[in-house]
Amino acid sequence: MRYSSYFIPTFKEIPSEAEVISHQLMIRAGMIRKLTSGIYTYLPLGLRALKKVENIIREEMNRAGAIELLMPAVQPAELWQESGRWDYYGRELLRFKDRHNRFACLGPTHEEVITDLVRKEIHSYKQMPVNLYQIQTKFRDEIRPRFGLMRGREFIMKDAYSFDTDEGGANRSYEIMHEAYSRIFKRCGLEFRAVEADSGAIGGSYSHEFMVLAETGEDMIVNCKECDYAANLERAEVAAQERPGKSSAEQMLPLEKVPTPDMKTVDQVTSFLSVSPADLIKTLIFAADGGTVAALVRGDHEINEIKLKNFLGAQSLELADPDLVEETTGAPTGFAGPAGLEVRIVADNAVEGMKNFVTGGNGKDLHLKNVNLDRDFKVESFCDLRVIKQGDPCPRCGGSIAFGRGIEVGHIFKLGTKYSKAMNAIFLDEQGAENPIIMGCYGIGVGRTVAAAIEQNHDDKGIIFPVPIAPFEVTILPLQMHEKDVVEASEKIYSELCDMGLDVLIDDRDERAGVKFNDADLLGIPVRITIGMRGVKEGIVELKMRFEKEIESIPIKEASSTIAGIVRDLYDSIK
Amino acid sequence: MRYSSYFIPTFKEIPSEAEVISHQLMIRAGMIRKLTSGIYTYLPLGLRALKKVENIIREEMNRAGAIELLMPAVQPAELWQESGRWDYYGRELLRFKDRHNRFACLGPTHEEVITDLVRKEIHSYKQMPVNLYQIQTKFRDEIRPRFGLMRGREFIMKDAYSFDTDEGGANRSYEIMHEAYSRIFKRCGLEFRAVEADSGAIGGSYSHEFMVLAETGEDMIVNCKECDYAANLERAEVAAQERPGKSSAEQMLPLEKVPTPDMKTVDQVTSFLSVSPADLIKTLIFAADGGTVAALVRGDHEINEIKLKNFLGAQSLELADPDLVEETTGAPTGFAGPAGLEVRIVADNAVEGMKNFVTGGNGKDLHLKNVNLDRDFKVESFCDLRVIKQGDPCPRCGGSIAFGRGIEVGHIFKLGTKYSKAMNAIFLDEQGAENPIIMGCYGIGVGRTVAAAIEQNHDDKGIIFPVPIAPFEVTILPLQMHEKDVVEASEKIYSELCDMGLDVLIDDRDERAGVKFNDADLLGIPVRITIGMRGVKEGIVELKMRFEKEIESIPIKEASSTIAGIVRDLYDSIK
Repeated sequence: MRYSSYFIPTFKEIPSEAEVISHQLMIRAGMIRKLTSGIYTYLPLGLRALKKVENIIREEMNRAGAIELLMPAVQPAELWQESGRWDYYGRELLRFKDRHNRFACLGPTHEEVITDLVRKEIHSYKQMPVNLYQIQTKFRDEIRPRFGLMRGREFIMKDAYSFDTDEGGANRSYEIMHEAYSRIFKRCGLEFRAVEADSGAIGGSYSHEFMVLAETGEDMIVNCKECDYAANLERAEVAAQERPGKSSAEQMLPLEKVPTPDMKTVDQVTSFLSVSPADLIKTLIFAADGGTVAALVRGDHEINEIKLKNFLGAQSLELADPDLVEETTGAPTGFAGPAGLEVRIVADNAVEGMKNFVTGGNGKDLHLKNVNLDRDFKVESFCDLRVIKQGDPCPRCGGSIAFGRGIEVGHIFKLGTKYSKAMNAIFLDEQGAENPIIMGCYGIGVGRTVAAAIEQNHDDKGIIFPVPIAPFEVTILPLQMHEKDVVEASEKIYSELCDMGLDVLIDDRDERAGVKFNDADLLGIPVRITIGMRGVKEGIVELKMRFEKEIESIPIKEASSTIAGIVRDLYDSIK
Repeated sequence: MRYSSYFIPTFKEIPSEAEVISHQLMIRAGMIRKLTSGIYTYLPLGLRALKKVENIIREEMNRAGAIELLMPAVQPAELWQESGRWDYYGRELLRFKDRHNRFACLGPTHEEVITDLVRKEIHSYKQMPVNLYQIQTKFRDEIRPRFGLMRGREFIMKDAYSFDTDEGGANRSYEIMHEAYSRIFKRCGLEFRAVEADSGAIGGSYSHEFMVLAETGEDMIVNCKECDYAANLERAEVAAQERPGKSSAEQMLPLEKVPTPDMKTVDQVTSFLSVSPADLIKTLIFAADGGTVAALVRGDHEINEIKLKNFLGAQSLELADPDLVEETTGAPTGFAGPAGLEVRIVADNAVEGMKNFVTGGNGKDLHLKNVNLDRDFKVESFCDLRVIKQGDPCPRCGGSIAFGRGIEVGHIFKLGTKYSKAMNAIFLDEQGAENPIIMGCYGIGVGRTVAAAIEQNHDDKGIIFPVPIAPFEVTILPLQMHEKDVVEASEKIYSELCDMGLDVLIDDRDERAGVKFNDADLLGIPVRITIGMRGVKEGIVELKMRFEKEIESIPIKEASSTIAGIVRDLYDSIK
């Protein structure tokens, strides 16, 4: 491609609208432009990177035996009513009426549509397993779209749906996708990790997220340094463990009321009472599906609302507003305690071993000391309710854990029969009996993968694309467009590389060398060839890899074959 | 691809929902399934055909120097308000509010979005000419979606937009697209014709439609048998010509009122008065942009409302309702005449030479005889206002014209400055003066092209795909899946053809030969290889082209190279 007849509007300034580095660089490198909040046009360079990711996905999905089709963006309300999600999905589901006043929505995901197709076309165990996928534009009406392609409203996604006759088959389909996803992100040239995750609004029994590792990532990842356990922060299990420093032989002391005027935080109360935060129990009041629940966690621990929601099996869970707190505890927010509460009480495992602890006193400016389980209140259940933290042991092997940051680019779900039961997608088994089809679903954010790649691979000059998803593999910079010899040498190498099937961008603009170098660094094309008057006279061109500092001189005669070899090596190095 | 591990749900029955043959066959061949009114899922086979068309389009657009990008489906209302189309586009524009109560729409076309991009990125004559295109999903909320992919609501379109600094450049851009479109439809293996067309809601100065010729086509095409004039019916010009059989020397006769009780149609009146329909003038009353206009055409001619609308330069034009007719003429519908009317009167060219004709009498059950121009009423303008008909001469060369049917698959428009002026897309010319950018736009319906190909190429057994857009080029039918020799021979040819880069479908289902033959005919794959036990023993396989009746025996040893040669010849034959 010739730069002069292409459309790459770059600029130097950091766009004020862009908070994260990938967003800034994609705008500056002329890859995307915002149309309106959370909605972007992919300019030619951005589209090329997208298509490279799409092609890798397509090849690996096909290799894994998945079959490509294409479903519509606009979906009728009826299917969502059947699955129950019309009411539960929330306002991210963009709903509207068509000209005949029929309700419809813009698809944020396609479980309903694919289940509708499959229930009409698949009736026998003989037709399964089957995995159907598409690469298609989705819409989620995010309340606060941000970070460019990271959290947009309209975005391109690969979504796949597997259909099996039994659990074993469904697990195999899940594993096949797990492996395909690993190959996909590896082939994109990315450092990534698959972590256990929560299933969220999609539902189902278990799931994994594929995280591109990046310091700037939105998500916290937990992994064990000794075994292969890895999970995202919200999912990471906490091993039930004994409370350090307190023996169970400790005697219960008499309950004491202590005035704590205006002290509402753990820090305030524990400083005042000269105890450690680990000697206090926080009592959090929640509204769950219309009822009220109190959740107890240790003062130095943080509640994990997803774990609580999953444990309760609740459709909706929200921290109580001040009115509900007052109604439940008889006190303003900040003084809740379990003693005397007449609601369900669940507690984190770490609470179980505690003695003589501090809690709120269910009265304004009041706390209790020497509170004890069973004597002063009863807990309905103990379970894992808190967020894992530094120093906690690995829930699998007891080893030490590390925290890191990542960007979710893929998510695979074992759905089970959630949709097939709700929408009556059944099949006849070998004995002629009717059974619900067992499903899995598998997503990859295509634009997000490009953005995550940039978060992981950039420097202060611009993007450093991994070769498999770079818009071009090689860029050629002729330094003097008025020198016939420079232009001829550049054109020769350009046409030779094109003939060898490489993606090459020749910067044939009549611009100063500095402009060309800056744009080349910004665009992040892996291999840069610089051709100048002096070099041509000496019979050399300059070669620089975007991810290295060194510049190498190579003989002009061997330039094309050398470059082709380098590009081949780049691909080989990530296989 | 192996049939057994693919997803091709075929069936025999003609689906009751499908009115046209392409719709029926695409459902029966497992290419598409309806999700809801006018919205279809492309099953794997349908998607393959779509992708083949897309790839041909992409190659030819790139070859023509156009640059691919990708714009969003959801578009903000503000841009449509700027262009003025938010109010004028009608209810095909699906409008909705997002969660923040901002109005948006699903893009039926992208003039506004591309003009917004270009006005922000292109400021100098040096940046033009440029042609930007995308292949993207559109939505038009058709009042009566029908005919499958022919008139769907959600559909895939290639749309391109050219930007030039002057008329000459804009005309060149238009010509380049005209040529690219010709290559595209030729390369798809289709018989087509480019015809002059009206610009409609897109606007602009002139346009051509690309029509795939098919007896079942919705559109009527007019073309000259002698010169290269071709136009769609609504656009086709009528040469101004003298009225046959009447000399201008004929004397004017005295005006006569004749009672015509309950006679409202041309046939009724002319039979009753024993005159020819060519001796009567129809007076049609229209509401145009809030005013009233009377349009006159000869009794044997049909008014062309698009010509009238264009001549008047009206934004809206509608045939008057009975109230307006009564108000304007003083009579119920059916008795309007020009004499005594106090509104603008325009007349078709053919009216100009008439003498002593019949018109309505502007009174119930009343007509006039021996009406004459100028003496009895005045015409403001004569112009071409009627639909061309059999027997009319070619408007260019006077030769004879033919009528045919076609399906519109592409449409190119010279837009001029309609959008750049409305949205302030200006550039600085060489003298530093500000000018509006001159635009063109160019669309191809991708799914429609596949459907049109099927309308043009089918028989009573199924589809007959042209090879370039066939989902597969070759299908292999092993007749006995339990015979090791048959399976081995089939697999060998299958893998050899795949290695040669051909798209091959092997029907490895354990089905009867009849089922395989029927499905192969239905699917329409151009080259069919049948491998049976007897043939294998004799060292032959059977070759049949889908578009021929004959079956040929070819030596099994040379089968792969013979087939590859045949496929190559098929491509060569349409170059």
